[in-house]
Amino acid sequence: MKVLKPTITAFESSPDCGMGLARDMRVRWALEEVEQPYDVRLVSFIEMKEPAHLAVHPFGQIPTYEEGELALFESGAIVFHIAEHHAGLLPVDANARARAITWMFAALSTVEPPIVDRDVVEYFEDGKSWQAERFAMVDERIRGRLNQLVAHMGNADWLDGAFSAADILMVHVLRRLEGSGILDEYPTLSAYIARAEDRPAYKRAFAAQLAAFTASHGEGANQ
Amino acid sequence: MKVLKPTITAFESSPDCGMGLARDMRVRWALEEVEQPYDVRLVSFIEMKEPAHLAVHPFGQIPTYEEGELALFESGAIVFHIAEHHAGLLPVDANARARAITWMFAALSTVEPPIVDRDVVEYFEDGKSWQAERFAMVDERIRGRLNQLVAHMGNADWLDGAFSAADILMVHVLRRLEGSGILDEYPTLSAYIARAEDRPAYKRAFAAQLAAFTASHGEGANQ
Repeated sequence: MKVLKPTITAFESSPDCGMGLARDMRVRWALEEVEQPYDVRLVSFIEMKEPAHLAVHPFGQIPTYEEGELALFESGAIVFHIAEHHAGLLPVDANARARAITWMFAALSTVEPPIVDRDVVEYFEDGKSWQAERFAMVDERIRGRLNQLVAHMGNADWLDGAFSAADILMVHVLRRLEGSGILDEYPTLSAYIARAEDRPAYKRAFAAQLAAFTASHGEGANQ
Repeated sequence: MKVLKPTITAFESSPDCGMGLARDMRVRWALEEVEQPYDVRLVSFIEMKEPAHLAVHPFGQIPTYEEGELALFESGAIVFHIAEHHAGLLPVDANARARAITWMFAALSTVEPPIVDRDVVEYFEDGKSWQAERFAMVDERIRGRLNQLVAHMGNADWLDGAFSAADILMVHVLRRLEGSGILDEYPTLSAYIARAEDRPAYKRAFAAQLAAFTASHGEGANQ
């Protein structure tokens, strides 16, 4: 199916300093997997809350995806759109496809929320008397999910059969735990992430988002 | 398209006492909208964590959806599956369909997490010295999302054009705020919820889940 060259948005200055944890990474990775060229428009934190961006993303976030007259937001929906319009990111068999979509939702609705909550504790509850206790509570919820995920995966390479859009979302969700020490307890998941990071499409997407960060914060900016 | 009669799972004893806040309500509502008959298997909290249920739902929750050899979990994925295989819950126009799917993800990934976090504060941080301060922080995040949602909706009846699967998810997510007092501040959203609750399919789904609760906790149980 013919697709117009899309334009996505990403942080002009990503808070993760180019570690590829911002959600544009999911979209870049999906586009690289299907070898679809794309343009990027970088937006500042101020621009993200202005009417022009809110018209595309009502919640004032990144990424967005514009393709001709179509404008989408939500990384999950964008990755699904890419997967639906190119071969390779969703199984052809109807039941396998439905299961892959289930895992897309599972990554975002079941696994991601406690992991994002951990960042809330880290950054927005910093200095609060309760921060340590909240970390313990959130980490227990995270471990509960990861234990269930590991039980499901067993010795499999990917979530459900062949690599799919669901793995893009799940791996990216799990990567947000880097630095927490929690992933060290889960060799199955560390190996899963490493397997994903070894994909050429992942590497191209990672390099592209890092280059965007370096362009505004690189050696030149430090001189 | 011919669909085998599906079987979904729901709480044997819903913690919301039949208020229709458990996630099986989303699936029941979608099935009622498309007039697809279904069976329900009620599961106890013990059964949900046992191997037979975990084989269908790796995270040990409800709802699940079984249709012939296909087994799905995640309410978002199940509602999407129903919408994809019946007319009426997703627009036919390709761009409008992609936008409706975007709003499905927005309901679950952007609007729902802080609302669920409010329940975490209410039930799991009850008695903690910090509960009041956490309520204030979470409610501020919730209001931020609701303000953006209201700004998007304007005077529209539904999220994006005609009623769709996205409205099922968003309305059900918002209903979880009932009793918090927050919805009283948003007449646009209260009217949106009321409009949804007035749909015959919603009423049938609500009655069905209430009947399931009443059967195990009704007058007989209190005598």
